[in-house]
Order: sequence, then structure tokens, then C-alpha cells
Amino acid sequence: MTDGTGLRIAVGGDINEARLAELRAIAPGADIAFHADQKALDAAIPDANVVAGLVPAEALARAGRLKWVHSWAAGPDPQLYPAFVESPVVLTCSKGNGAIPLAEHAMMLMLMLNRNALHWVEAQRHRRWDRIVHGELNGLTVGIIGTGYSGADLALKCKAFHMRVLGLRRGGAPAPNVDRMYRRDELREMLAECDFVVMTAPKTPETVDMLGEAEFRAMKPTAFYICFSRGGVANDKALYRALSENWIAGAGLDAHDVEPLPPESPFWSLPNTIITPHNGATSAQTPERGYRIFVDNLARYVAGRELVNVVDKRAGY
Amino acid sequence: MTDGTGLRIAVGGDINEARLAELRAIAPGADIAFHADQKALDAAIPDANVVAGLVPAEALARAGRLKWVHSWAAGPDPQLYPAFVESPVVLTCSKGNGAIPLAEHAMMLMLMLNRNALHWVEAQRHRRWDRIVHGELNGLTVGIIGTGYSGADLALKCKAFHMRVLGLRRGGAPAPNVDRMYRRDELREMLAECDFVVMTAPKTPETVDMLGEAEFRAMKPTAFYICFSRGGVANDKALYRALSENWIAGAGLDAHDVEPLPPESPFWSLPNTIITPHNGATSAQTPERGYRIFVDNLARYVAGRELVNVVDKRAGY
Repeated sequence: MTDGTGLRIAVGGDINEARLAELRAIAPGADIAFHADQKALDAAIPDANVVAGLVPAEALARAGRLKWVHSWAAGPDPQLYPAFVESPVVLTCSKGNGAIPLAEHAMMLMLMLNRNALHWVEAQRHRRWDRIVHGELNGLTVGIIGTGYSGADLALKCKAFHMRVLGLRRGGAPAPNVDRMYRRDELREMLAECDFVVMTAPKTPETVDMLGEAEFRAMKPTAFYICFSRGGVANDKALYRALSENWIAGAGLDAHDVEPLPPESPFWSLPNTIITPHNGATSAQTPERGYRIFVDNLARYVAGRELVNVVDKRAGY
Repeated sequence: MTDGTGLRIAVGGDINEARLAELRAIAPGADIAFHADQKALDAAIPDANVVAGLVPAEALARAGRLKWVHSWAAGPDPQLYPAFVESPVVLTCSKGNGAIPLAEHAMMLMLMLNRNALHWVEAQRHRRWDRIVHGELNGLTVGIIGTGYSGADLALKCKAFHMRVLGLRRGGAPAPNVDRMYRRDELREMLAECDFVVMTAPKTPETVDMLGEAEFRAMKPTAFYICFSRGGVANDKALYRALSENWIAGAGLDAHDVEPLPPESPFWSLPNTIITPHNGATSAQTPERGYRIFVDNLARYVAGRELVNVVDKRAGY
């Protein structure tokens, strides 16, 4: 089936004619259709062998021919409900598509917090020449939790800022641009060293509440917490206390446990915290890179080669 | 005089006992005194062979024994009045002491402008979850005017952001992390390529008004101008028109032609411009690094070795 003959491929989301033509050139024998909304995609799932997009639990029950799902998201959490995890359907995701803009967002938040940029924003608003003494990232220590694509790009950037870079991954294996890698059981030891702690890890049964009261209390009172992956990896109650009771100096939070962050959330008004609306990777290039991952995988699929970005459904990433 | 015997050294500014002891250990035969304010320093200048600090024109007239002045500033403009330039007194400066924090400031401004960070600051103020599509620095082109210490560090950082880095220096000689170096007479050609133009050059008779109407019009309408060296290298009237008439997309301005920027300046209220109060290098480490340059030079001076950071008084840097 190197031309995809017999395959039915249902593609959801923002696919235009040029993209469809590209997919058809890769698998000219396949039946490829795209579906602009979830309802249309759901209707196509019972006959599909391959779906790019979300397969909800209701649709999975009727998906007798489904072999492979590609998630347009980098973090495929919504796809990982128990029946899907138990099923033999292979899941790939778009992880890596937002790595670079996420690392850029983290650097922006680190710089804004280290320099107290909001002081200048406020001073400009009042046309006030109000100089301050601020920090430098140069010479400080950053601890990056999770060493996937975004953590790796962030480590590269932090080295160009002359920072000491610590990393944390389950087994503690070394990685480029990381001066010292810690194992999961050395978390608090790493936290105590850091001026910035950056959370890049997905939310999985193993990572939920990884940072709680003991962990935030292990951090320096001058340290900042940055999160661009998922809320809930840091326990929200502990994080709020850490910020409101000054266990740590502040935070830059792009990912939140409840999203959208509700207007009544107390996080909005913390004076030492910059909130962004899960918006770190929302550039025009991110979906394009996710689409490229699917295109690459479709070529691999029809050729019978190994797929990339295969999700370990039980591990959750 | 390898122990400094016979030397009179007048040190102005923020020098404590530990620093004074360190200087005396370098030149134990010298008469070293420090003077907390300019008036006290002025009184010591007539007898001094070496001054660390500013020698005003009035004091220079009485400075019959003066051989060497070290400027605590990176840009020694205030010292470069005609009588001093004409005099045989050697001038060294603290250039390089703020290079790293200035490059950090430029990266912060570039990220904030590229991502429209002020949108998020405003949304947070109103507890509003308001997502936007923003840019990535990744893949964009930055043009760095001037390739001194800060320009070199900025080039390193921009490469870690996966940017194309262009540089401009008089002779066009290549430099690390600069993909293409332009000569001064190729300025407009470089400007037309850039998504960000960063001014790092000092203000000298040769650089004043380097960027005028023709230069801003040569830039892309989507490009941003960043300045952390000196105002006036870009002509203020042309810059204001470029920003208010959208010849370019915006600016991040730390250095200004008139400082402090007066409350009535129209630059404060430009919606596409981030103003900071010449504050990019104002970390605790910057004066310490400037002091280290003087310490190094004093050891060189008493040993009769060549000084570092010697200013070409006519060139102005």
C-alpha cells in the first residue's frame, strides 16, 4: 500500500486545498477528506483508518477500522481518555511544534521578571523617568523540569545568557547545554539551587502535583517560577501560597490548572506574577510545524516505516 | 615606579574601604585618596597624576600633573570636551561593563515587541483571558549597528534565537555570530533586510544622525528599532515620524536624545513604542565590572604596561 490504496483518511481542522493536494500526492491511492469542524469529523470516523484531529470517546466506540490518530496539539491530553488508552489505536502528536516559541516566551518572562519590566510599563504610562536597579540573568541558575523539545531549546538560549543550566529528567541522563542533570528523586535538591525554575513537563498521572508546598518551600525566596507546559503539574493551592506569602519572588504563568483562567481567580492580581493566556506558542508557524509532522508521518505510514512523535499512551506524552 | 611611588591617585565615586585597600595593595607606594562627590574630587585634581571619575573643563585648567583619567562610564561623552580632547591626557573608560545587561535588555524589548507583551499586561490588569496570534524571533533578521562588546553579546544571543544576524561596522570586517557584516556605506542595504535594527553605536561626530528619514524609510514597515546606546544617533524628528506615521512597526528605546526624557515628550505616548529610562545596564554588577577595569588598568599603569579600554578621543569611543 505504498500509494495508500484502500486507506481512508479523515483530516480535521484548518486544512486548505493546497494542503489537501499535498496529502493526496503522498498517498494518491487513499481516500482523503477534510472536515472543518468536529461534528463533520465525528461523522467520518466510523469509516476512517486514519484521523488527524480529535477522536472523542463517543466516536471511538463506532471507530471499527481506526488504526492511527494524529493530534494537532503538542500535548494530546484530551485524546488520552481510558478507552482510547486501552485501545490498540496508535497516537502521534504535534509535540515540538511550539518548542521554539515556548522557549522564547519563557525567556521573555524571565527577562521581564528579572528586570521588573512592569515598573517601566507603569512609569511610561505616567510619562515618568524612573530608573531602577535590576538584575541580570547573566550568572544566575535556571532549572528546567522536563527535557523535551522546548526544554532543549530553552537550555540553548539560557547558555547564550551565560546562565548555569540545571535539568531534571526521570533517569538523569545528560543533555546538551545542561550543566547538571538531576533525577526525579533529586527534585528538591535542584530546586534549592535555582533562581528560575521552568516547568516544561506535560501533565500526566506521574507529574501531577510534582511541585507542592514542600517543593516551593525548597526554592530560594528570590527565585521565580515559570510555567508554559501545563497547570496542575504545580499544585495550584501551593503555588498561590508560595506567591502570596512570598515563599518565592514571583512567577510567569502561561499554562494554568483551569483554563481559561476565570476572572475571579486570585492569580490575576498577584503583584509579582505575570499571567499570559496559554499563549506562548500561538504564532502562525506553530500549526504549520504540526501539519509538517503529520505530512512526514503520513509518508512514513504509507511506506510502512516507523512513525515519529508516537505517544506513550500510558505515560501520557 | 612598579609600586606606584610618587603617584597621586584621586578616585571619585562609590569606593569603599575594601576597594581602597585593594588599590593600595596594587600601588603601595602611591598616595591614593577617594572622594565621594564631584566637588571633593575637583579639589584633588590639581595635584593628581591619575583620576578615576570626571575631570570637568574648569578642573582640567588647573590639572598640571594629570596623565591619565579613567571614566566610570562606558560612554565617556562628558569627558570629551575640546580642551580635554586636545590635551595629552590619556583617557580610558569602562566600556564593556554593561555589555551583557544591555544585550539582555535588547532581547527583552525585542521579545516584548514581537509578541505584543503589552497586550497581555493590559489583559491581566482587566483579568481578561484574551489570546492573540504573535510572532516568533525564530527565523527573523536582526541588524546590529556597531560591533563592540554589547553588539557581540547580542549577536551570540540572537543566534540562540535562531535569527539571521547582520552587522554593520565601518570597515565591514567579519565577526563571530554575524552572518553578514556590512560596511558603513551599505547601511541602507542592510536596513532593508531587517526585522529588528538594534543601535549599539556610541554618539560621535561620525555617527550623529546616522539614521534619518531616508534610513527609516528604507526599513520594512514591519520592522522594529531598538536603541540602548545613545539617542541622537538616530535623528529624533525622523524617528518620531517613522513611529507616528508607521513607516516602521515600533521601537524599544532605552537611550534618548534628551535625557531624562521630559514629561512632555511625544515619545512617551506612542502606542507602538516601549520607553525605558536609560536603564538597560543598571544592574549591581555593572559598576563592579567598571571598577574591575580600573583595577586592571592601575596594575598595568604602575608596571608600565599598555592600558586597556583606551579611548580614541577624536573618534569619541
